[in-house]
Amino acid sequence: MPLSGPLGSLPLPSFLEKRFFSSTPRIRSLNVDNINQNVRKAQYAVRGELAIKSEQYRAQLNKGEGKDLPFDSVISANIGNPQQLDQKPITFFRQVASILENPLLLEQQDVLEKHAGYKSDVFGRAKKLLKDVKSVGAYSASQGAPGIRQSVADFIERRDGYPADPANIYLSAGASSGVNTLMNIICSTPQTGVLVPIPQYPLYTATLTVLNAKCVPYYLHEESNWSTDLEGIRQALHQAQDEGIDVRAIVVINPGNPTGASLKPEDITSVLELAAEEKLVCIADEVYQTNVFEGKFHSFKKALRDLQKSEKNSNGKFSNVELASLHSISKGMVGECGHRGGYYEMVGFDPEVIAQVYKFVSIMLCAPVIGQCMVEMMVNPPREGDPSYPLYREEYDTIYKNLLARAQALYKAFEEMECVSCQSPQGSMYLFPSITVPPKAVEAAKQAGKKPDDFYCLRLLDATGICIVPGSGFGQKDGTLHFRTTFLAPGTEWVGRITKFHREFMDEYR
Amino acid sequence: MPLSGPLGSLPLPSFLEKRFFSSTPRIRSLNVDNINQNVRKAQYAVRGELAIKSEQYRAQLNKGEGKDLPFDSVISANIGNPQQLDQKPITFFRQVASILENPLLLEQQDVLEKHAGYKSDVFGRAKKLLKDVKSVGAYSASQGAPGIRQSVADFIERRDGYPADPANIYLSAGASSGVNTLMNIICSTPQTGVLVPIPQYPLYTATLTVLNAKCVPYYLHEESNWSTDLEGIRQALHQAQDEGIDVRAIVVINPGNPTGASLKPEDITSVLELAAEEKLVCIADEVYQTNVFEGKFHSFKKALRDLQKSEKNSNGKFSNVELASLHSISKGMVGECGHRGGYYEMVGFDPEVIAQVYKFVSIMLCAPVIGQCMVEMMVNPPREGDPSYPLYREEYDTIYKNLLARAQALYKAFEEMECVSCQSPQGSMYLFPSITVPPKAVEAAKQAGKKPDDFYCLRLLDATGICIVPGSGFGQKDGTLHFRTTFLAPGTEWVGRITKFHREFMDEYR
Repeated sequence: MPLSGPLGSLPLPSFLEKRFFSSTPRIRSLNVDNINQNVRKAQYAVRGELAIKSEQYRAQLNKGEGKDLPFDSVISANIGNPQQLDQKPITFFRQVASILENPLLLEQQDVLEKHAGYKSDVFGRAKKLLKDVKSVGAYSASQGAPGIRQSVADFIERRDGYPADPANIYLSAGASSGVNTLMNIICSTPQTGVLVPIPQYPLYTATLTVLNAKCVPYYLHEESNWSTDLEGIRQALHQAQDEGIDVRAIVVINPGNPTGASLKPEDITSVLELAAEEKLVCIADEVYQTNVFEGKFHSFKKALRDLQKSEKNSNGKFSNVELASLHSISKGMVGECGHRGGYYEMVGFDPEVIAQVYKFVSIMLCAPVIGQCMVEMMVNPPREGDPSYPLYREEYDTIYKNLLARAQALYKAFEEMECVSCQSPQGSMYLFPSITVPPKAVEAAKQAGKKPDDFYCLRLLDATGICIVPGSGFGQKDGTLHFRTTFLAPGTEWVGRITKFHREFMDEYR
Repeated sequence: MPLSGPLGSLPLPSFLEKRFFSSTPRIRSLNVDNINQNVRKAQYAVRGELAIKSEQYRAQLNKGEGKDLPFDSVISANIGNPQQLDQKPITFFRQVASILENPLLLEQQDVLEKHAGYKSDVFGRAKKLLKDVKSVGAYSASQGAPGIRQSVADFIERRDGYPADPANIYLSAGASSGVNTLMNIICSTPQTGVLVPIPQYPLYTATLTVLNAKCVPYYLHEESNWSTDLEGIRQALHQAQDEGIDVRAIVVINPGNPTGASLKPEDITSVLELAAEEKLVCIADEVYQTNVFEGKFHSFKKALRDLQKSEKNSNGKFSNVELASLHSISKGMVGECGHRGGYYEMVGFDPEVIAQVYKFVSIMLCAPVIGQCMVEMMVNPPREGDPSYPLYREEYDTIYKNLLARAQALYKAFEEMECVSCQSPQGSMYLFPSITVPPKAVEAAKQAGKKPDDFYCLRLLDATGICIVPGSGFGQKDGTLHFRTTFLAPGTEWVGRITKFHREFMDEYR
């Protein structure tokens, strides 16, 4: 074997190579080979190449320079960003927030009620929140404002029928920041593993890659509407353990992203049983808990408390199950992504571990306080009899109905498309159809240096201005192709653009 | 040597030990010994034990249970959180924010002008920002809204007299989040080192510890008002390099935290010269750039452009200096900590590295959008002739004058205290006096299992309700003791509490 460098082919840390053996002196401190390679390896397709290209098209159209493009608008169906797609914020939330930002408006109650549609409970809520946070411009306690955490605990108790403790609630900058914290705590060595569903929201794989830990994939069962498959999970777990991976946690996304599926109660129970037996932290990503279109939402927390109750007088197998459940203001009918609000509840954890979580979050000081206040309003919205209730109800129901209608229209279109099959929309904001493309299209993709699903999505964007995300960005079984689309864009005209493109694409490569 | 375990004294990764050799089965996935030990090692005293105890006192007093306490209020002088300490937000910012939260208020311009003191430019600004972000409830571009980045670039150009490019601006959730991003990019191996001033704001050491990289401390020169000492930096750098540490960056905090110092232009130039020679990224933490009480603020960016200009026709030593400059809405006269807004400008970096920064921030989606809007208002406040200008100017000047007056009152008190010496207040929100305590106090601290400065601060809290941070939380030369206090708390009565405590403490242990 020929020598390939001054020290032969011995692998050297790249920084040594650069500093001492490179023929040209380093001109900067950082280059792509000597920065954190875990960051470099991380992939996040939701905001990747396609998203960047779609923004370029949008900028072109806005400048009036897009006359040669075959579309007159860009549809961002790649990301769950409702208010960018004309979903109106819920009035109560924003009226309260306007007072939180300018508390002097409290003195203008008469004027605002008379002219701007504010109701008396808007002022009451603003006063309650201001009493708790003092000013939305002040740092709160690292874990979140105490009164807001109390509201979250009350909500969980109403939802599940079991008490919740505000001391277990952590307010976060969206659920993403909560996931980041949990993963930072869990990932202790390069051999630490976390079970992640495939397909998954790429936050999980990206965060594990940045933290140099192992993603242990388990496949969801597409044929039964992307349900969890306990035997499959167990197999993935044992195989990883055999390879020396120290599997510490399992992530479940319910309702599913990107799958749009809703887990059955028995599937939730079986994941918790596995967590109890194998001593795994269960991370329940429940940010789509109100985006449920079939049946009702079942929380992991309630399922855990049910199991603990049923075994009360037995050996307590479930008593130490560690469950972290996440929620967010970005999804549901609230859709306040830009405010970066969320929370996670941690139950069953060792208090010494909790102390480390507290310290970790305190380094970043606190979650955005106006986002914390939005969390409070999400979990404690106007109730029947409150002056703001009728409008709140109407807005909430309208958003829900529109989401459902668009999901169904899109589903119907996919059902009618050649070589496309899609599970029925059960929850979240996405559909994740499977597509089969002709061999000539696979060949054309290869020629273009692309995976077939990347190629399909790029062609769709170039032809229609619609931006979706290839299945490879979420993970999919070898030999299958998918894409994820939100059903947030208003109207249904754009659905027609997809079917037309698909027909032409299939004809071109048939 | 006796065998100390089933495999002798061979060190085993703790997870292996736990799984295969522990006599009691693991009852949970996580315990403090098997979580990420880098998180465990990280220290962040600003929100540590003393802060937690002070919050307990506050809660006691609020519940009316604190009658036996020797004080009737808790003063949080441990953290720069102006609005928690009664600093009023700037009216223009909050009026605009109230409209951003509820754009329907745009239709109430007459009413709000007549009754609530809004001026016409408030509506103009709100419209401009809404045009850029569409809704504060929508995710922005990962890097920040384009129009806001343009405003930041314009501000930098006005401040420094050199053009700035909005493509180089990244909006962040406070400066902390920007530092976190930069460190994640830089820290590639356990041997990666970053030069950090001592004393420092513990965000830096905590983040480096979490990322398993090396803090390379360089000591500031207390006697010349905590200035940088180039020879000292060079020595620290070379010593670290001799130990095999790959030093990649230097952090400078100007004005200083916790020191309250303001760097001279020649000190800034010499740090940049060092960065150029040694190929170090320069991280300029300039969040206190408007909190300057002596002379004026000099930015690293301007100093770099000056150097580049002066060498235009020479060999271009400075042309590739990588500079990241951070700013924040949390400090200055703005004090909007709870909104989590900030930005950093990156110049001189390799485009491939920048692409990785972009991907990294996109995983967390975007900075809080209302915080981004506050950044815009901070860098582009009302100007002379604008209807909101007179009130803005008055509020700004009043806050500045009050900070200066309290800084001076506190400085005067420290000057008069036995065995306390303090550099004059030049900038930021802090004083960092040095104290010498009697040997009997050192002994008493030892008995209590505390460092002497921890002991002093704890006794101060117990006696007066005033929470400050021991110098050990920021780093200090061996054998010296300090503490950091903000000068944000209103009034000066609490300064008297400190002097009285100090007298009694010194008498007790004399």
